[in-house]
Amino acid sequence: MIPRYSRPQMASIWEPQTRFRIWFEIEAHAADAQAKLGVIPAEAAAKVWEKGQGAVFDVARIDKIERTTKHDVIAFLTHLAEIVGPEARFVHQGMTSSDVLDTCLNVQLTRAADILIADVDAVLAALEKRAFEHRLTPTIGRSHGIHAEPTTFGVKLAGHAAAFQRARARLVAARTEVATCAISGAVGTFAQIDPSVEAHVAERMGLSPEPVSTQVIPRDRHAMFFATLGVVASQVENLAIEVRHLQRTEVLEAEEFFSEGQKGSSAMPHKRNPVLTENLTGLARMVRAYVTPALENVALWHERDISHSSVERMIGPDATVTLDFALARLAGVIDKLVVYPANMQKNLDRLGGLVHSQRILLKLTQKGASREDAYRLVQRNAMPVWRGEGDFQTLLLADAEVRAFLSEAEIAELFDLGFHLKHVDTIFRRVFGRA
Amino acid sequence: MIPRYSRPQMASIWEPQTRFRIWFEIEAHAADAQAKLGVIPAEAAAKVWEKGQGAVFDVARIDKIERTTKHDVIAFLTHLAEIVGPEARFVHQGMTSSDVLDTCLNVQLTRAADILIADVDAVLAALEKRAFEHRLTPTIGRSHGIHAEPTTFGVKLAGHAAAFQRARARLVAARTEVATCAISGAVGTFAQIDPSVEAHVAERMGLSPEPVSTQVIPRDRHAMFFATLGVVASQVENLAIEVRHLQRTEVLEAEEFFSEGQKGSSAMPHKRNPVLTENLTGLARMVRAYVTPALENVALWHERDISHSSVERMIGPDATVTLDFALARLAGVIDKLVVYPANMQKNLDRLGGLVHSQRILLKLTQKGASREDAYRLVQRNAMPVWRGEGDFQTLLLADAEVRAFLSEAEIAELFDLGFHLKHVDTIFRRVFGRA
Amino acid sequence: MIPRYSRPQMASIWEPQTRFRIWFEIEAHAADAQAKLGVIPAEAAAKVWEKGQGAVFDVARIDKIERTTKHDVIAFLTHLAEIVGPEARFVHQGMTSSDVLDTCLNVQLTRAADILIADVDAVLAALEKRAFEHRLTPTIGRSHGIHAEPTTFGVKLAGHAAAFQRARARLVAARTEVATCAISGAVGTFAQIDPSVEAHVAERMGLSPEPVSTQVIPRDRHAMFFATLGVVASQVENLAIEVRHLQRTEVLEAEEFFSEGQKGSSAMPHKRNPVLTENLTGLARMVRAYVTPALENVALWHERDISHSSVERMIGPDATVTLDFALARLAGVIDKLVVYPANMQKNLDRLGGLVHSQRILLKLTQKGASREDAYRLVQRNAMPVWRGEGDFQTLLLADAEVRAFLSEAEIAELFDLGFHLKHVDTIFRRVFGRA
Amino acid sequence: MIPRYSRPQMASIWEPQTRFRIWFEIEAHAADAQAKLGVIPAEAAAKVWEKGQGAVFDVARIDKIERTTKHDVIAFLTHLAEIVGPEARFVHQGMTSSDVLDTCLNVQLTRAADILIADVDAVLAALEKRAFEHRLTPTIGRSHGIHAEPTTFGVKLAGHAAAFQRARARLVAARTEVATCAISGAVGTFAQIDPSVEAHVAERMGLSPEPVSTQVIPRDRHAMFFATLGVVASQVENLAIEVRHLQRTEVLEAEEFFSEGQKGSSAMPHKRNPVLTENLTGLARMVRAYVTPALENVALWHERDISHSSVERMIGPDATVTLDFALARLAGVIDKLVVYPANMQKNLDRLGGLVHSQRILLKLTQKGASREDAYRLVQRNAMPVWRGEGDFQTLLLADAEVRAFLSEAEIAELFDLGFHLKHVDTIFRRVFGRA
Repeated sequence: MIPRYSRPQMASIWEPQTRFRIWFEIEAHAADAQAKLGVIPAEAAAKVWEKGQGAVFDVARIDKIERTTKHDVIAFLTHLAEIVGPEARFVHQGMTSSDVLDTCLNVQLTRAADILIADVDAVLAALEKRAFEHRLTPTIGRSHGIHAEPTTFGVKLAGHAAAFQRARARLVAARTEVATCAISGAVGTFAQIDPSVEAHVAERMGLSPEPVSTQVIPRDRHAMFFATLGVVASQVENLAIEVRHLQRTEVLEAEEFFSEGQKGSSAMPHKRNPVLTENLTGLARMVRAYVTPALENVALWHERDISHSSVERMIGPDATVTLDFALARLAGVIDKLVVYPANMQKNLDRLGGLVHSQRILLKLTQKGASREDAYRLVQRNAMPVWRGEGDFQTLLLADAEVRAFLSEAEIAELFDLGFHLKHVDTIFRRVFGRA
Repeated sequence: MIPRYSRPQMASIWEPQTRFRIWFEIEAHAADAQAKLGVIPAEAAAKVWEKGQGAVFDVARIDKIERTTKHDVIAFLTHLAEIVGPEARFVHQGMTSSDVLDTCLNVQLTRAADILIADVDAVLAALEKRAFEHRLTPTIGRSHGIHAEPTTFGVKLAGHAAAFQRARARLVAARTEVATCAISGAVGTFAQIDPSVEAHVAERMGLSPEPVSTQVIPRDRHAMFFATLGVVASQVENLAIEVRHLQRTEVLEAEEFFSEGQKGSSAMPHKRNPVLTENLTGLARMVRAYVTPALENVALWHERDISHSSVERMIGPDATVTLDFALARLAGVIDKLVVYPANMQKNLDRLGGLVHSQRILLKLTQKGASREDAYRLVQRNAMPVWRGEGDFQTLLLADAEVRAFLSEAEIAELFDLGFHLKHVDTIFRRVFGRA
Repeated sequence: MIPRYSRPQMASIWEPQTRFRIWFEIEAHAADAQAKLGVIPAEAAAKVWEKGQGAVFDVARIDKIERTTKHDVIAFLTHLAEIVGPEARFVHQGMTSSDVLDTCLNVQLTRAADILIADVDAVLAALEKRAFEHRLTPTIGRSHGIHAEPTTFGVKLAGHAAAFQRARARLVAARTEVATCAISGAVGTFAQIDPSVEAHVAERMGLSPEPVSTQVIPRDRHAMFFATLGVVASQVENLAIEVRHLQRTEVLEAEEFFSEGQKGSSAMPHKRNPVLTENLTGLARMVRAYVTPALENVALWHERDISHSSVERMIGPDATVTLDFALARLAGVIDKLVVYPANMQKNLDRLGGLVHSQRILLKLTQKGASREDAYRLVQRNAMPVWRGEGDFQTLLLADAEVRAFLSEAEIAELFDLGFHLKHVDTIFRRVFGRA
Repeated sequence: MIPRYSRPQMASIWEPQTRFRIWFEIEAHAADAQAKLGVIPAEAAAKVWEKGQGAVFDVARIDKIERTTKHDVIAFLTHLAEIVGPEARFVHQGMTSSDVLDTCLNVQLTRAADILIADVDAVLAALEKRAFEHRLTPTIGRSHGIHAEPTTFGVKLAGHAAAFQRARARLVAARTEVATCAISGAVGTFAQIDPSVEAHVAERMGLSPEPVSTQVIPRDRHAMFFATLGVVASQVENLAIEVRHLQRTEVLEAEEFFSEGQKGSSAMPHKRNPVLTENLTGLARMVRAYVTPALENVALWHERDISHSSVERMIGPDATVTLDFALARLAGVIDKLVVYPANMQKNLDRLGGLVHSQRILLKLTQKGASREDAYRLVQRNAMPVWRGEGDFQTLLLADAEVRAFLSEAEIAELFDLGFHLKHVDTIFRRVFGRA
């Protein structure tokens, strides 16, 4: 996570002030529950809220205390005591630092997930808008980078929309994975604290209680969370690479929007580089890279070791901030993508109709030609086209042997793009529920 | 995937015979649908089933044909024609090879998922059985590898059971991700084939139609599938490492079952190595390794490139066979784990009661000692224990200043293991729905 | 590693027969050294060689024994005793299984490295041949997929040649990393065996003694080995992707060789897919995937745990066989690559000379035009070209204001490709030592 | 890279001020070379040095310009012109931004490598010091976490020293990989700039010219660099995990140094957690995670795409800063490690001499006992020891059947630790060149 690839809303989740605020809320809610149980005085819990609720925590002060105590939660509690006063001694009773740290991390991750889900919604909105705009814009479909059969640019975008619908569902599931709370003590036995405290804090923080925590919340949850982010990042890359291909000089079917002020030159009008989507390709690599350490974090020793902590201090912000930035950038790229239908048509026409050769072949056999003859007839008309010596349809029309099987109208129909577009509505309805 | 780490049922999913059988079924179901549409004669479809249903496909023959055609589906169809006869020419009409290949892969992956889910069920059964067996077997909980507070061995296992319940749910979700079928033609436009064929094949093969395929089924689905396997493998590693730690010479709280015939020596009775769980640690690394190539497979070029294919030919079997083997091995390890409650107790007692020091500290302050005094009192009795010069409880009982705050009964109670076990039922009910 | 992507020579390194042969050699050389030390009778060592040297080991028999002993080295030694007779009891004295296993693995890896180095040599030979062939074949250089400035196809290939020269050096270094031998006993202290045995075996097996082994040879060596393979595989991908781009329908500057028999259709002459290089892209993902488990293998517990073993049983063959196959395929692709200089020229000309706009701009300022004027002049001639309304050079020649600064000859010179090719010799000399 | 895990010297390499300083030097040296060639006036080059050498670049100002130009190098050059004056127009002539960016990155990476090498030297110094200190401190060697045979703590450390000697050599090689300079223009043809400029800049910046650059320096170099860092990080993890194991409550053969002020409690003297080495385990995961994106960066499109850039902006600092921090922390941990030889001895004695059972077995056969008898004799004395009913040596001495083969002195000798330590000198000499 670096400022260049950060957006403020997501970055703020990982700022110390936010963390301390969440820690405070966890402690204060726990105090409420403890007061209700009669473990601590109700007035103490009330005072914690009264003094702490509006407080701004002094990050520098807490850092300074931590340099002595070498313990972040103790440093925070020490500072909290400065704010709350003597009643602060009732805070954190029966709790262990990880109760606060792990519950806080999960609050942060669920908030991050909410932003990412909204980001995907923006990508989806852009894709849907542009898909309908180009619902029937013919373009060549390519397999292996080679022209295959016609499709529409809208269908291409609909495919990516379906993919991002899946991305959304995955993020929702990933959010649920990490939306748990643990207030269970040193090894998770609730020896020092009643399970009702956990239930109360969970409910107030929008989480559910972790069934079994062992000082820590089990890290297979976080592994699943970050793995999901890696999948979504790969989907970002998939669409980014499509744009990069479309913007190639030889293809030029679409271009990233180029802002007016931007240093792109009309002295070199061809030199508009797809730098945004190239950047997305790189960012996807990074989000993907955070998956493996998250997986390696699962196998902690016994009831916990703390090896996961340094990893999470890094990938928590790195993965969420980077993916948020990437999704937002992607939404913008799609929303403002400059599309060149004329170039799509030009590319479609580029092979002089050869993309229809398979239809011709099939039709000839259906009309009675042997496979061998059909193949020979198509071949002898295809080769000149391939050498740039004519147009496929014209040549076929002029081939008497072909014409013995196919009328002019039949040949024309085989070159009709409508044949390829007849199920666009079906596809759109599947994705968007409307066509 | 190597024979040493393979089990027949999972391995057979990836055998050529199985693959050809699935291809046949896809083709035959598609023929039925085409016949219903009137595209091909009903008798042709019937003949395909009649001749092909019971046939054993000649793998060597297909391989030989492929060496000429350099195309696996064409080689299969050629061989199928040898079996079916002239009606075979109606097979595969309007379809593209990927329709068969991708739908087949997803059938294989869903079958693999079914086995993996059953494997997890076996792990869960073993965990539940042993958890209840050791529901109240006291053992020391460890954080950072250091003794923390008591828990029970059953609670430890319950935690892993909860984790594998999550693993199960993840595998069910992963199965759904890949349970799709595509029969949509060269670039997914259904130009040559009606969508109803896809619907029919999907229904018969236990899949749902892929909303938008582009010659291929989008690979974010498979990325999610293999990422999930990586998470589950990491969970296997987590439990494997627990067993390895418990079997250490200095700990010896549990041991892998050692079969009678096995070359383990009673001349060196200590030399029983946790080789099964060490092996699981390694296998987890492998299953995890297959996640990244699956993620890299997502960004195919345009409507498809075929870079994913070689990856899937390898990780399809490798990841599923290895994880199947690992889960089955894990279930056996847990089911037959030799547990040493006496050693658990010995380790619990090892520190002469120091693991209770925090309770003493807390109680002293609750009884009116200042924090400083309480700390001093605990410390002066803890240090001799640490040096091996006595038992903590005995020393405390003999310390007049301590006794000014705490009676003999109170001190005894603070050393009572029951304090730590009082919520075992809560935890068990959360996980198993019963205690 | 699957047969489809295997070549016999590399695969044979990993066959049981090869492994047992190497085990035999290690044991027999060790026996020689032990005999020389007087630890075992000289006749025993001689007998081992006499009986074992020409023997074919019965893999099925050894497997059967292993099923009982659950120990592969013991199974082998039992079988060896069947071959050698009573003198076999002098074999393996003072040694530990890992002495044999680890030294054998390193013999296998060094042999694998030798093949990989030869593979790279073949890639280099193909690159050099084709580079010189196309030393001065002009082609457009592209940054961001967008036309930049002219270069030659030979220069492109020279760049990859330089990269594979580095790959070669890296493989040589990786080979040295793993070319070590350990015969040091249960925890590496030489308690039961003299270091001179290790020295002798090392020398005979073409290895050097491992400075400190701890039952096992330290796995940072193997991590470095597999990491290097991952880098080389990424270089394969780099060149593979170049070919894939060049073969795109819109670019078509080169094509993979298409064998006569191959099912590629002249009825669809455009439909030649770069399947070999797409395949290489996938294979590169796999070889890269084996890097992380090799890195995770480094942190074994204490003097060794055996978690690395299952990983190596898989990635040993998988990584080396796959990379060998990939390099050999790449050498063939380059050697037989069908290059289309005419299409390269056509693409170069595609933008009507706009790729020279920067030279014009620079020259105008050098001849006295202000930056603003120069830019305006270039722009007003570039835009019509970009819209397809003319050729840049022609328009510039017709622009009086431009002509006030530049003569016809000067303009022509600015469009001279020779300007871009003047240092081709320098580059070739750097790479090939000749031009 | 986060402040918590950063050290200033390494972090400063990646600060904007450092980057701009390096950019300036590259530009100024290039200007010198251009002046020597007569391309620009010598006075201009001199002025650039005169004004720029001592200048502090205004980072905020450059950032502000970049927000308009969206181009970092142009923003820098604009600011440089503000400092240098009109002569600045001669700067950067014939160069492309990547000439500056890539050469700068390699300067940064070589400086980072220098620090990392010095870090490894500190680790090596600590290991050597402690290895000699504990050269003959007996300790149990463990395979599979199970007691195997005696070794010394010094030998353990010597093994890690040998590993870090390899780490050092790898870092030196990695440094060489990235110590190259490219000043070759838009597609690497030197069209606009003479190769002598590159040679001059390379020499002045301590680099060598890149044989073939293609606007960018080929990324296989950087892949190798970051892969090497991943290997070294895994070696850090290896040693870190050793310390974590030794500090376990049940083992307690060593402990991380615990600073006086540190909040570790003598009320709970056992609760000293190996948090530094747990932290190193996590940091190793991160450095390893950066390997794959670096590998994925190799396959840029054609002469370059810019997908690598975002990756490098992140992993450049992240990998080097984190590894630097980890190595420095590791050196401190080893240097100040608290070692408990008495506990090592206690653990050695823990199994009542059973670790010597294999020696007894061997000796009995050497003295004429059949394998079966020897095994039976060892077994019947081992089992009581294993059950805690006696000491192995005592029991053997009392076993008449054993004594028929072995005298008291012979038995005593078989329990002599010296047997295991006799080659410690050999090992030390191999690693340290002295014993």
